[in-house]
Amino acid sequence: MHLQFLGTSSGVPTRHRSLSALAIRGEGERGWVLVDCGEGTQHRLLHTRLSLATLEAVCITHCHGDHCLGLPGLLGTASMEGRQAPLTIVGPDGIRELVAHALALTDSNLGFPLHFIDVAVAAGALPAVGGMKLEAAGLSHRIPSWAYALTQDDPVRQLDHARLGAVGVPRGPLWGRLQRGEDVTLDDGRLVRADAVLVPPRPPRRIVVGGDNDTPALLDALCRGAQVLVHEATYTEDVAARVGPAPMHSTAARVAAFASDADLPNLILTHFSPRYGNARRSPHIGDIEAEARTAYDGALYLARDLDAFSLEAGGALRRLD
Amino acid sequence: MHLQFLGTSSGVPTRHRSLSALAIRGEGERGWVLVDCGEGTQHRLLHTRLSLATLEAVCITHCHGDHCLGLPGLLGTASMEGRQAPLTIVGPDGIRELVAHALALTDSNLGFPLHFIDVAVAAGALPAVGGMKLEAAGLSHRIPSWAYALTQDDPVRQLDHARLGAVGVPRGPLWGRLQRGEDVTLDDGRLVRADAVLVPPRPPRRIVVGGDNDTPALLDALCRGAQVLVHEATYTEDVAARVGPAPMHSTAARVAAFASDADLPNLILTHFSPRYGNARRSPHIGDIEAEARTAYDGALYLARDLDAFSLEAGGALRRLD
Repeated sequence: MHLQFLGTSSGVPTRHRSLSALAIRGEGERGWVLVDCGEGTQHRLLHTRLSLATLEAVCITHCHGDHCLGLPGLLGTASMEGRQAPLTIVGPDGIRELVAHALALTDSNLGFPLHFIDVAVAAGALPAVGGMKLEAAGLSHRIPSWAYALTQDDPVRQLDHARLGAVGVPRGPLWGRLQRGEDVTLDDGRLVRADAVLVPPRPPRRIVVGGDNDTPALLDALCRGAQVLVHEATYTEDVAARVGPAPMHSTAARVAAFASDADLPNLILTHFSPRYGNARRSPHIGDIEAEARTAYDGALYLARDLDAFSLEAGGALRRLD
Repeated sequence: MHLQFLGTSSGVPTRHRSLSALAIRGEGERGWVLVDCGEGTQHRLLHTRLSLATLEAVCITHCHGDHCLGLPGLLGTASMEGRQAPLTIVGPDGIRELVAHALALTDSNLGFPLHFIDVAVAAGALPAVGGMKLEAAGLSHRIPSWAYALTQDDPVRQLDHARLGAVGVPRGPLWGRLQRGEDVTLDDGRLVRADAVLVPPRPPRRIVVGGDNDTPALLDALCRGAQVLVHEATYTEDVAARVGPAPMHSTAARVAAFASDADLPNLILTHFSPRYGNARRSPHIGDIEAEARTAYDGALYLARDLDAFSLEAGGALRRLD
């Protein structure tokens, strides 16, 4: 599975970070899924290889502007580029209203149908998107907010060559049938079951992407079997204390402690307050990494715009150059 | 007066051109005016010295998404940055609805009041903005579209030193009072009228910015006395013919012919179809310049994102580095 961050800032854009958006594409799939669509997402896409023609679904975590205001423009552009394929949008019902109003008021007639799914109604029965199973779980924020899990079954089962040799299956068409999961009968009459000569399937690849959320433990069930959690870490503890009453965001420490408790092998933090810069002054983006590191000893990443990652079949996550 | 382009593409953004937006600031003024606000305008602003704290008014030419979908996000950011000063928005009534719906659906409570003016109702009686007189005129497009003229009176009248000497006004406080337009009485009892010792005022600086429009002649009245016209030149003639029935945009040739007829000394073209690129292939952005040049021999510019211009008191336009 492939991930690419299109925006990693919280609330307002900075010179280097656009607003929340993350592209996820299943291994071997052409279609891809967009999680959140802050203003400027379509601009960021122009610097990737992703095309709006192959976008299969947009999943919006919540209705705050920095997570959804890029959606009407992105849909308009897809239409102007000639898209005709239906597009699924999953999110709170306010997203349906936002899109409907914006398209009507800007005289936009999309050349393709939108299929809207209210996540609050259908959370337990979401359709597969982009060849991946889609699940959702409710979070804790100032307005209803959701996390999404995308899961892709191991697409190819490998033949176990040692077993094929031991059983005595001759190299040839029978190997292909066995790999496709078909049981076969040899010339000598013996039945060979595919399961007996296939390497056991690797666990499915699973990525969980949280929306804004001050209670990472709400992701506990969704994170079971996941290799990657992408979660906001808007603040460090000290800055969160200064920001004042209940921003209802997570700190780096809080997310890291959860990821550690949940035995998550990979944690990608994103959605950083624009207070954190790259200059030498405090607070620094490195403060978020340092704080997370104190509570978590798995593979830790701080997302930057256009960062791309590959989640391998074995569950290893690689940051691509 | 100062102009800075924040987006110069038509319909959809490209890697180098964002969507329509132009900042205009009067000479000696802190406040500034934004004409149109396509998606990504707030991102572009981060690469200028302009601040949302000093934005005085937003004038929207028409309700197509590429001219207005950045407005809700820009307002939200101004609020998150602590703005409290009221903001004037001038535009078609759909803009008021777009902003109201988007802010409500994204749970945004702005920390400052919006003062909305329906240009279709108030076109003849618009308030001054950013120290500049504001006027509007209706254009011809698929939906109602408007042009805006911003005019700044010559802010400082100069003393005519030769006349002061001839009349015999002694150097000192009387000079200051005369420059401020006050008539003064000399020690010998003679009355000196300010007008008699001031250099005649230079003509006001005047910039006209068109919205999408297929009939430049509709700008005739608004362009009287203007030194600069900013107008869309979405296509060249050959591409416009291929695009098919009535895109209701202007070609470079059509705008150039009008600017020539109207004796406009400076013409800035913008809002280019994304078909025109910088690579060697056809059509090329240079085609637009070449076509305009055949019909217009004044100072011609093709706007690029972040291009800045200064309109001097004498009416000369300079492109800044």
